[in-house]
Amino acid sequence: MLAIPLTQENALTQGPTAASCLPGVGQIDRLLAVRALSVELCAGLEPEDLVAQSMPDASPLKWHLAHTTWFFETFVLRPHLPGYEVFHPGFAELFNSYYVGAGPRYLRAARGLLTRPPLRTVLRYREHVEEALRRLFEPSGVRDPALLDLVELGLHHEQQHQELMLTDLLHLFSLHPLQPAWRQLPALPRRGLRPLAWVEHPGGPDTLGYQGEGFHFDHEAPRHTVWLQAHALADRAVCNAEFSEFVRDGGYRNPLLWLSDGWAAVQREQWRAPMYWSEDGQSQFTLGGECDIDPAAPACHLSYFEADAFARWAGCRLPTEAEWEARARGQAIEGNLLDSGLFRPAPVADGLQCFGDVWEWCASAFLAYPGFKPASGAVGEYNGKFMSGQMVLRGGSCATPRAHLRPSYRNFFYPHQRWQFMGLRLAKDLE
Amino acid sequence: MLAIPLTQENALTQGPTAASCLPGVGQIDRLLAVRALSVELCAGLEPEDLVAQSMPDASPLKWHLAHTTWFFETFVLRPHLPGYEVFHPGFAELFNSYYVGAGPRYLRAARGLLTRPPLRTVLRYREHVEEALRRLFEPSGVRDPALLDLVELGLHHEQQHQELMLTDLLHLFSLHPLQPAWRQLPALPRRGLRPLAWVEHPGGPDTLGYQGEGFHFDHEAPRHTVWLQAHALADRAVCNAEFSEFVRDGGYRNPLLWLSDGWAAVQREQWRAPMYWSEDGQSQFTLGGECDIDPAAPACHLSYFEADAFARWAGCRLPTEAEWEARARGQAIEGNLLDSGLFRPAPVADGLQCFGDVWEWCASAFLAYPGFKPASGAVGEYNGKFMSGQMVLRGGSCATPRAHLRPSYRNFFYPHQRWQFMGLRLAKDLE
Amino acid sequence: MLAIPLTQENALTQGPTAASCLPGVGQIDRLLAVRALSVELCAGLEPEDLVAQSMPDASPLKWHLAHTTWFFETFVLRPHLPGYEVFHPGFAELFNSYYVGAGPRYLRAARGLLTRPPLRTVLRYREHVEEALRRLFEPSGVRDPALLDLVELGLHHEQQHQELMLTDLLHLFSLHPLQPAWRQLPALPRRGLRPLAWVEHPGGPDTLGYQGEGFHFDHEAPRHTVWLQAHALADRAVCNAEFSEFVRDGGYRNPLLWLSDGWAAVQREQWRAPMYWSEDGQSQFTLGGECDIDPAAPACHLSYFEADAFARWAGCRLPTEAEWEARARGQAIEGNLLDSGLFRPAPVADGLQCFGDVWEWCASAFLAYPGFKPASGAVGEYNGKFMSGQMVLRGGSCATPRAHLRPSYRNFFYPHQRWQFMGLRLAKDLE
Amino acid sequence: MLAIPLTQENALTQGPTAASCLPGVGQIDRLLAVRALSVELCAGLEPEDLVAQSMPDASPLKWHLAHTTWFFETFVLRPHLPGYEVFHPGFAELFNSYYVGAGPRYLRAARGLLTRPPLRTVLRYREHVEEALRRLFEPSGVRDPALLDLVELGLHHEQQHQELMLTDLLHLFSLHPLQPAWRQLPALPRRGLRPLAWVEHPGGPDTLGYQGEGFHFDHEAPRHTVWLQAHALADRAVCNAEFSEFVRDGGYRNPLLWLSDGWAAVQREQWRAPMYWSEDGQSQFTLGGECDIDPAAPACHLSYFEADAFARWAGCRLPTEAEWEARARGQAIEGNLLDSGLFRPAPVADGLQCFGDVWEWCASAFLAYPGFKPASGAVGEYNGKFMSGQMVLRGGSCATPRAHLRPSYRNFFYPHQRWQFMGLRLAKDLE
Repeated sequence: MLAIPLTQENALTQGPTAASCLPGVGQIDRLLAVRALSVELCAGLEPEDLVAQSMPDASPLKWHLAHTTWFFETFVLRPHLPGYEVFHPGFAELFNSYYVGAGPRYLRAARGLLTRPPLRTVLRYREHVEEALRRLFEPSGVRDPALLDLVELGLHHEQQHQELMLTDLLHLFSLHPLQPAWRQLPALPRRGLRPLAWVEHPGGPDTLGYQGEGFHFDHEAPRHTVWLQAHALADRAVCNAEFSEFVRDGGYRNPLLWLSDGWAAVQREQWRAPMYWSEDGQSQFTLGGECDIDPAAPACHLSYFEADAFARWAGCRLPTEAEWEARARGQAIEGNLLDSGLFRPAPVADGLQCFGDVWEWCASAFLAYPGFKPASGAVGEYNGKFMSGQMVLRGGSCATPRAHLRPSYRNFFYPHQRWQFMGLRLAKDLE
Repeated sequence: MLAIPLTQENALTQGPTAASCLPGVGQIDRLLAVRALSVELCAGLEPEDLVAQSMPDASPLKWHLAHTTWFFETFVLRPHLPGYEVFHPGFAELFNSYYVGAGPRYLRAARGLLTRPPLRTVLRYREHVEEALRRLFEPSGVRDPALLDLVELGLHHEQQHQELMLTDLLHLFSLHPLQPAWRQLPALPRRGLRPLAWVEHPGGPDTLGYQGEGFHFDHEAPRHTVWLQAHALADRAVCNAEFSEFVRDGGYRNPLLWLSDGWAAVQREQWRAPMYWSEDGQSQFTLGGECDIDPAAPACHLSYFEADAFARWAGCRLPTEAEWEARARGQAIEGNLLDSGLFRPAPVADGLQCFGDVWEWCASAFLAYPGFKPASGAVGEYNGKFMSGQMVLRGGSCATPRAHLRPSYRNFFYPHQRWQFMGLRLAKDLE
Repeated sequence: MLAIPLTQENALTQGPTAASCLPGVGQIDRLLAVRALSVELCAGLEPEDLVAQSMPDASPLKWHLAHTTWFFETFVLRPHLPGYEVFHPGFAELFNSYYVGAGPRYLRAARGLLTRPPLRTVLRYREHVEEALRRLFEPSGVRDPALLDLVELGLHHEQQHQELMLTDLLHLFSLHPLQPAWRQLPALPRRGLRPLAWVEHPGGPDTLGYQGEGFHFDHEAPRHTVWLQAHALADRAVCNAEFSEFVRDGGYRNPLLWLSDGWAAVQREQWRAPMYWSEDGQSQFTLGGECDIDPAAPACHLSYFEADAFARWAGCRLPTEAEWEARARGQAIEGNLLDSGLFRPAPVADGLQCFGDVWEWCASAFLAYPGFKPASGAVGEYNGKFMSGQMVLRGGSCATPRAHLRPSYRNFFYPHQRWQFMGLRLAKDLE
Repeated sequence: MLAIPLTQENALTQGPTAASCLPGVGQIDRLLAVRALSVELCAGLEPEDLVAQSMPDASPLKWHLAHTTWFFETFVLRPHLPGYEVFHPGFAELFNSYYVGAGPRYLRAARGLLTRPPLRTVLRYREHVEEALRRLFEPSGVRDPALLDLVELGLHHEQQHQELMLTDLLHLFSLHPLQPAWRQLPALPRRGLRPLAWVEHPGGPDTLGYQGEGFHFDHEAPRHTVWLQAHALADRAVCNAEFSEFVRDGGYRNPLLWLSDGWAAVQREQWRAPMYWSEDGQSQFTLGGECDIDPAAPACHLSYFEADAFARWAGCRLPTEAEWEARARGQAIEGNLLDSGLFRPAPVADGLQCFGDVWEWCASAFLAYPGFKPASGAVGEYNGKFMSGQMVLRGGSCATPRAHLRPSYRNFFYPHQRWQFMGLRLAKDLE
């Protein structure tokens, strides 16, 4: 029997229900369903599994559970629910990630030392806050649009952390000599690797950024005009069979293929293959333990440096985020996302694949769009302060909740990072 | 109600019982009582508390529980109990500390990532091994003196780790912003600080090292002649009231009082007082949480550098280990040891105090005695390979089981370390 | 008497002379004049001054003298001058900076250990190579355009290193307790700080990148269409009086003004003011030694993080490189450049100032223009491999040779670096 | 023609001359001869060679020249020569090594950045101070014994630095890809490796420490009684043929032979052979450049860890310093010392060899003798503050001036250091 969370499908796909007669109550139902998934992701794990931190970039799962709760307590309940009683005065410092405006923060790299509060207390903390969130919406709902926006931000914040919970756990378990599995995973569909096709764009003026009424992060806006050059994008991501060729061809030993900082990383970290690959290139470590590499699934756990080197080796380049978004705009959010329950990249299907499997590195630095305005208040620190040194990724992965994604969604990481479900799509110039 | 382990007194004090009619059976009873204390020390803690590693020098408590068990499995059961079935083949690597001769070892600094096996499995591992140890002694006891020696070594090894469990936990909790307490501790006896008295020695030939039939570590032998110079030793350790004067007098700001490496440590680590002292010098963090500093209790959590600087400031010096042992030889093992259940230094009593409260730094490097022979086999790595860079400490602390101690006992740490219960006793030359 | 190089004006300003009747001979004359300046910049220094390396980012001056010579030997003479005899076979490794395609390289961070060859040998190396370059152009000139391009690249490469020689020396001397001066510098013109004015741009399609027949680096091309948003740029750089206000207002103590990586740098490096400022904010270390800060001169030695934080504090932003270039295109290359002989930022003059004083940080990452093609051969490593993690700077500085600059010129450094003559210009969106 | 300094023999061997009719004037003559050797050691080097610092443990030769001069200026001239004019007020900080009592000190690890003062100024500094020292002794000599002691200390201090100049230069040149030689060295005498013989000692009371009226460092005293166990010492050092066997036998790959800290160093530093050995074990880098390893010369450039591992491999141990001194006491100071002009270990001669070739690591930590009193005043920092973490070496090396050595001489270094001329002598217990 698989341990795939049963309620997950509902949690992630349902919009506001027609039955919600009070303003915002559909939102609170959706929110609580999303939050339930965070706990479900921990099912079957030991309390000890949730406390360890495998590297400064990652966080313990218990910390994720508490931090996402702190977010609602700090930004929604304390300012907006009269009479709200803080669960524990010390948690403000323990579970603030990086919001300087929200007070002092515990040292990020030492989160693995937070053995207290224990898991059961964190679960009570979650219940305490969820109960208060319910009270906030009763008896008459919430009409304040700014408050509804904050709740929605908290919901999406929780979804971001759900993806991080899976990638952080994968990293932790990958370092364990006994190679534990999170869960037994369902088999992947069997498909051969189909040839890559190119989708062309003639160039010219286009737009970039979110347009509409729905939720989006501040850094996806404002929508603005850009000018694209004529180019073509691959209709799918680069797959393991292709990346294996790069490895066999000595790609990791040829400095001329690499960015200067990338080559330094190859040598410093002794990279010889994508993260989690076995030495013989036949298997890889996954949330289901060690398993065979599927040649037809997108290559995963690649840094920007590796993505860029592969593209150069292939005589191509990475797409810009404007090119990527131009292609994805208007496409349905379909693909191997968290909701598929596969929890790893799967052999690619036919047709243009825009979403899922792996986040795709873009040849665009994470910078402000023209006219960018950070969200107001302390949540304005959410994205804007990370606008240096990081690159944009697009498209979502097998660990991204489907309801969390948009064509305009900008993810961002440092070019050396590769513990997320990250890969690449090829692009090329048209003359 | 205090949570002091009830069986502890028995576990630590009883020798072989008269009722043990089979050879070695008294030993196995004693051993199991000692091992029970290791588990009792964890009572009241969360599973999460036992998995975190606060620094490379320290280990998770769960790791201590498993490693002391691995010791018996590896050195006693596998070679000596026919048909013994290893509990888990992967544990050999996970819980080997530093015995190169016993196979590969998991990276010391990453022990905090060993979330698996969970605590309950480690407890089953302990039972599995204890059951096998019982079988080893049944039905007719054990007569092989080498095997009895190994069992005795394992017992003392376990006791060493009991002390480390307390000091490692103290360090972990000291870093937690909420400053959790291990347990509520009993009140200290109330005593004023009595003046220090000097005990003189005229110098001349003396001996150093263990003599007798009982258990001792290899590095306590062989007993050999040394020549002492005329000197005097203080009859007790330096106490908090005295060390506070050093702090107030600018001791931590005057480089002329410090060894060169010590001053480098002061600046690098920003030392301003003993470890765990509050900034105002009024309170300190203990296993019972934050509490007032008792002026009449020995100053504790001092590095060799601080001990040496204090002695220089006081116009004295630290004793050599030969001087220390000459004074302690023949004294009863009495004092504030683990068995007192105070778990922190207590105000000093009257009369010559040789044992307990704090390990006392000696002006002697940890080196081989003339004619030193390491124990044979893989356990020969126990002590001999640490004979560089470390200094000797003598006398046991409030976390040392009484039955573990001897006047000839040599403890050793690096001069910058201070997370153990460490302090100093003054010495001076006589003309 | 000042020691300003007399021939400098000529070296940097003259184009191909009419008297050069053979193809390329004007180029070789110009080249040798440029190279003479490299040596002149060392006049008055001790041989010892030229050997030390103050940090891994900087290089010894002697190394610069040799490396720029190695560039001609490796890329021009060895492949193109029949019978050319290499000056010393070991120099290939010693003085290769980062050209993997050109063979092994000596460790960058240890260039300060290259006491051999001594200065006088490096000067002979320079003469040997210059003599060979002359032979290459005699008796009939050079007609091969690819070869002429390589020579031109070498000339511009030498000019880049001339700027680095000055900034690296400044850094070295700034660490010396005796604060030596490179030379006595001429007085700055006296001017009060004029108010800043804004130059508006309505937005719409524009172009970016070099257009023309002259020399330019590969990464300045191809010229391509971009779409600008409506915006305004300041008509001059931010000056010391303005930056001092930021300092006094606690700019360096307010994390909300900083990018996340920037605030980490502030804390790690203990930044409290621009590099080289005295603690009281009254004076700064320059190539002429310690001297008063001129309120009307551009603020200098700022990291991207500081530039960005200042702009946020001022309610503005940094310009993009497309905005910057749109404004500068067509402007004469005039300003306080190396040719002025001031060797430090000077009080700003009236009118739109585009060039000189300080390189201006742009809110643009250093990435490939659409359709970018690296130069062919080993010199293709010149720029392309640095396209990650760095930001673009525009406009040249008081250490940039005038003949080296273009409106399309893209300089690039990491956001934490500040030992170059770096500052900022404000920009803002227009509604 | 060799470049061996001609005056060296005189400088190092002559005692006070009969012609010196004024008190102390023989001392000043001897001092100036010693100081001349410091400058002669630099003959043939480039000014650049004297400024670089190859690692924090080493210092530039120019710094040594200046620091030894600063020592006389600070401790002899300023307090004792009325009207003495300091050469340059800034030099006090630049050239103080570690004397906290003598004022602030320039950062040790950055001495390679002190390009100023240039060599010629340092040479004038030396002349200025020597001229003043001459004045101090004229016209009537010096009778104050404390002052004569300080001058003598300065002389021996200078000799210590002469050895360091050679070892620091060797280290610097060893890192240079072109492997420069300091000088062409004279050929070594040709001798086969004679068998090692053992010299026995029956054990019992003995004494340790300097006795007599002559100069000695504070830490060589007081002479005191020790008790030796019965033992035997080898009559010569371990030689290259023997150490090669250890290497071939996998000594560097067997952790059971090593101290724990030693094995960590082997892995961290990738040690595979003594320092400066070529990969094939056939040649080594010396002050005369790369040359063949002589099998009959003492193995050199070994850390304590390597010496200890070799001794364990050979079934022996290292001698204690008391054992070493008991054997050497009363022996003439003869052997391959600096005065031999060979500047590297030479094939060992017949008979008991106590001095020269290599410093011999002892199994004794560098600690205070009982009753140790540091010298009074700031020079009390000379030795006492290094009494932690270091091990004693005895016997002098091929870079030690003969007049500098005594049987009671205690040298000391950290156990991982190996850039000095260091080796080992075997010892063993007698039953």
